[in-house]
Amino acid sequence: MSKLSQKHLLGIKDITREDIELIFETADNFKEVINRPIKKIPALRDVTIANIFFENSTRTRLSFELAEKRLSADVVNFSASTSSVKKGETLLDTVNNILAMKVDMVVMRHASPGAPHYLSRHIKANIVNAGDGTHEHPTQALLDAFSIREKLGSVSGKKIAIIGDILHSRVALSNIFALQKLGAKIMVCGPPTLLPKFIGQLGVQVEHDVMKALQWCDVANVLRIQLERQQIKYFPSLREYSLYYGITKKMLDGLKKEIVIMHPGPINRGVELSSDAADSEHAIILDQVENGVAVRMAVLYLLAGATA
Amino acid sequence: MSKLSQKHLLGIKDITREDIELIFETADNFKEVINRPIKKIPALRDVTIANIFFENSTRTRLSFELAEKRLSADVVNFSASTSSVKKGETLLDTVNNILAMKVDMVVMRHASPGAPHYLSRHIKANIVNAGDGTHEHPTQALLDAFSIREKLGSVSGKKIAIIGDILHSRVALSNIFALQKLGAKIMVCGPPTLLPKFIGQLGVQVEHDVMKALQWCDVANVLRIQLERQQIKYFPSLREYSLYYGITKKMLDGLKKEIVIMHPGPINRGVELSSDAADSEHAIILDQVENGVAVRMAVLYLLAGATA
Amino acid sequence: MSKLSQKHLLGIKDITREDIELIFETADNFKEVINRPIKKIPALRDVTIANIFFENSTRTRLSFELAEKRLSADVVNFSASTSSVKKGETLLDTVNNILAMKVDMVVMRHASPGAPHYLSRHIKANIVNAGDGTHEHPTQALLDAFSIREKLGSVSGKKIAIIGDILHSRVALSNIFALQKLGAKIMVCGPPTLLPKFIGQLGVQVEHDVMKALQWCDVANVLRIQLERQQIKYFPSLREYSLYYGITKKMLDGLKKEIVIMHPGPINRGVELSSDAADSEHAIILDQVENGVAVRMAVLYLLAGATA
Repeated sequence: MSKLSQKHLLGIKDITREDIELIFETADNFKEVINRPIKKIPALRDVTIANIFFENSTRTRLSFELAEKRLSADVVNFSASTSSVKKGETLLDTVNNILAMKVDMVVMRHASPGAPHYLSRHIKANIVNAGDGTHEHPTQALLDAFSIREKLGSVSGKKIAIIGDILHSRVALSNIFALQKLGAKIMVCGPPTLLPKFIGQLGVQVEHDVMKALQWCDVANVLRIQLERQQIKYFPSLREYSLYYGITKKMLDGLKKEIVIMHPGPINRGVELSSDAADSEHAIILDQVENGVAVRMAVLYLLAGATA
Repeated sequence: MSKLSQKHLLGIKDITREDIELIFETADNFKEVINRPIKKIPALRDVTIANIFFENSTRTRLSFELAEKRLSADVVNFSASTSSVKKGETLLDTVNNILAMKVDMVVMRHASPGAPHYLSRHIKANIVNAGDGTHEHPTQALLDAFSIREKLGSVSGKKIAIIGDILHSRVALSNIFALQKLGAKIMVCGPPTLLPKFIGQLGVQVEHDVMKALQWCDVANVLRIQLERQQIKYFPSLREYSLYYGITKKMLDGLKKEIVIMHPGPINRGVELSSDAADSEHAIILDQVENGVAVRMAVLYLLAGATA
Repeated sequence: MSKLSQKHLLGIKDITREDIELIFETADNFKEVINRPIKKIPALRDVTIANIFFENSTRTRLSFELAEKRLSADVVNFSASTSSVKKGETLLDTVNNILAMKVDMVVMRHASPGAPHYLSRHIKANIVNAGDGTHEHPTQALLDAFSIREKLGSVSGKKIAIIGDILHSRVALSNIFALQKLGAKIMVCGPPTLLPKFIGQLGVQVEHDVMKALQWCDVANVLRIQLERQQIKYFPSLREYSLYYGITKKMLDGLKKEIVIMHPGPINRGVELSSDAADSEHAIILDQVENGVAVRMAVLYLLAGATA
């Protein structure tokens, strides 16, 4: 097998375990490429990719842009803050306009859950969802699972705790789907106010005590507490969160076992992770970032092939 | 003939019918290029182009940027919102600074009518006007005329109605100049408050009844009502405009004749055009966008040749 | 000698006279390159450079971006206004994230003096300081000295007056360091309120009368009065500054000697320089801009070689 079952990458929910494994095998090759002196291959020289970001995201946009440039694609960037979106144009008209300029693939972030799915029913170009609200963020989940596989040899059978603000995260749901498809056991851990109500239906364990989660898991994927949301008062406060859920190196060392700490970034040092935990030998946070470029190269490469 | 009569493209007023025809013949070739798998030619590999936008314009900027990249030019983008313009620098100093960095061509949008004409008297680089206030927007007029020629075989002798907010449009004047030079008959149609006072001197018919305009014309170029302006109360309101001037598919089908609907985008669906009209078989709106890239490639290519 | 003594360009204070001369000799070659029809060489084809600007700077960012493209480097731009910096991430985490994506060099502007020096102790990539607050702006000082050398044959022994707002300038300190290392005699001239208190310890002459400074010097480097600061009332006002320190062509012509006028831009015409002075044969302001690209190419080229 050398093709994805899908024309788009809208979410992890839509793809198969075989798709994920194909992406990982392709990303293995690209990880070698980006660690060579010449970090570029001419694979997508005939492909034009538009990065359409209706919400700001430096980190994800930069990772996609580098992945595209490593593949020699032509890249154009479009950000909604300077766009005709403000002039009352519909999403479909905006995207159709960009595509009429002979763009082959669209990498898209949008605040509304389902926006890329809606588009995929109306346009011909391949779409990669780079985050649709708090719904899915499939390439983040792929790079997370890829990083676990790299660190521990495989994902299957591993115990993975997703810790923190599950409710407002665009990462949690895609992670759960990806890790389940790959055969991991999953626990979510956080204060009840930061867990979505439907969490019980996802086939994951729920835990409110962070020490118990750490004792149980092989890997802790620690999510970000969104400082931006602190204007809206909610429980727990940052201080309370950090007191009850903040993870320190001392806690990790006290476990007397191997544990892998992941974080999608940007880290709030001293809130969800202490500085010494984030910088400890347990953490693979920067490996995740590096793997992000390789995994995104694999996704773009495979999707481009699917239409060739 | 294989050269433009001008060193710059400041407006349609300044160029000849022969210039326009040369641009169209060149754009025919480029339209083929951008529809090939490899959409790129090395024509402007030794040319550096700065896109200097003192006003936001995603659509036009993206179209120019793609045209430049298809020609293999080096491209730098400069937007006034993040620039030293805020620091009190003059327009000429800003542009001279950019040119001193060895930039060969300038694509420029500016809020002030005549800004590119002023610059052209003081700088050596080729200038393409990408819109100067409500004055001219020559590449839009060229792509509009090119699209009519493509759809109907030629522009000469065709009846073209420009409908809507003529007063605040940067598209109307350039369109009138281009279509007149190519031998079309032109009517403008809109409420009296949205027509400029000098309209009678331009040699065009004036009509206030949109149905009469539609009955008369082969092509209706429907302009955008600028929602941004609705803070300033003017007559007609959006609701009134849509009621008296909004074009629906039912109106078009009722004409019992071939009619071509154009729109420079972004469309306000339900205001100047109903959704079913915009998406109908009469509309060539996305062809206009595609042709925009080919026409801009032709303009840049020919201007670069003029200095070689 | 063909290597810099430093891995980074953090400031002029840290480099040697030999480093500066090596940069100048390399820039001589690149100045030829950027004046050829084909302005590009493949020197840094295997190098990825991130321009990380935590403060806006069109002029400097554009000059670096063109220098990087002329060297065929892969370029990504990151501006703080759209970044996760707002989300509470530390500077080191932000930069480490970008570097984990396999970026080889960082060109960085930051509001805090010492920010690039701090980073240089924690990251492996080469860093070029593109301005750290009012501290250093080394490439500006290099291009200024390069322009004097080009105009007058050498810097050694020349009398150079730096005139204006020394206190708030990011250019003054780096200029003093560079020109001293190259053997020039330096005078600073401005109202006492715009001179830093430590100026007496820098081994420069201090003068408050602009005519005396002009009579003394071979070169006047006229700094910008920062209009942005005029909300904060300080002495002198713009009007007073212009009256007592503004330089006109009449003043220059009255000197009855050769004098070179420099300005780092953007110019406030009619404040620190009259329009006729800025546009006179004395001024080499646009040569400075052109030389900026060549000097930055040299810095990037030499730093990349240092790690190869």
